Amino acid sequence: MELKKITAIIPNLQLGKVEQSLRDMGVKGITVSHVKGYGEHKKFFSNDWLSSSSRIEIFTLKDKVDSIVQAILESASTGVKGDGLIAVLPVEKIYRIRTKTEATASEI
Amino acid sequence: MELKKITAIIPNLQLGKVEQSLRDMGVKGITVSHVKGYGEHKKFFSNDWLSSSSRIEIFTLKDKVDSIVQAILESASTGVKGDGLIAVLPVEKIYRIRTKTEATASEI
Amino acid sequence: MELKKITAIIPNLQLGKVEQSLRDMGVKGITVSHVKGYGEHKKFFSNDWLSSSSRIEIFTLKDKVDSIVQAILESASTGVKGDGLIAVLPVEKIYRIRTKTEATASEI
Repeated sequence: MELKKITAIIPNLQLGKVEQSLRDMGVKGITVSHVKGYGEHKKFFSNDWLSSSSRIEIFTLKDKVDSIVQAILESASTGVKGDGLIAVLPVEKIYRIRTKTEATASEI
Repeated sequence: MELKKITAIIPNLQLGKVEQSLRDMGVKGITVSHVKGYGEHKKFFSNDWLSSSSRIEIFTLKDKVDSIVQAILESASTGVKGDGLIAVLPVEKIYRIRTKTEATASEI
Repeated sequence: MELKKITAIIPNLQLGKVEQSLRDMGVKGITVSHVKGYGEHKKFFSNDWLSSSSRIEIFTLKDKVDSIVQAILESASTGVKGDGLIAVLPVEKIYRIRTKTEATASEI
């Protein structure tokens, strides 16, 4: 069982649409946090040159990575600068706290 | 020296207990942030279906991972849905900013 | 193309200086979030023993890691406890949401 973590940094405006898309495809859990950042799109004319964004994190099985990445790309892309990015990182183990054991494939 | 990152996503209510448990066992540093998310426990009857949670991150040595994971499982588990999860990720290097050098094993 | 993620946990006070340093050297994107934590510096005499800190995350190419780490060390280090840490993690893939494709080296 190979595990991955998907991190997406997207504009706040796209968060609802991406969340709905992930729910619709049966993603079992997501973590959302508020971040600031700059990327392609910099706010040069603002005192605070960092834009507010949302970070979505998903721990999942390797086999599900491509379809989740695709769902985020489809629901978050507007084609303009500042759309954000998705990164895939390796994960070694996942434990479910409720059962105090390593998560099984069907739980992820 | 093999390095790991432990990420735990837990209900806010359990944060104090888990922090105390990590301190008691001598964990040298933790990072806590406020996140929202859904997992086993979804708030279907709320407009905001994401629950507030806490994310704890710990950079540590491979040899300490099992005992830290165990401490989090013991202090955070209530046995009901929504208890959250723990993930272990590989880390390649850790630098201590104060000394401007790579951290030694005794510093982690 | 080998990819890495650099995470720096630094005192809020150093954030402006580090951001400026990363911008000056041409880092193409950073993500900043608000965290709390303890490390070398514990606030034993406060009810809330966690200090407020900033987490900076940068997705980059392996070849750029050393210079970015160096820039953060130089701009963030004050030589006293609580200066924070930098960690380098492996990343497998990065996608650019605007183009719906994997990011090319020149985009990272």
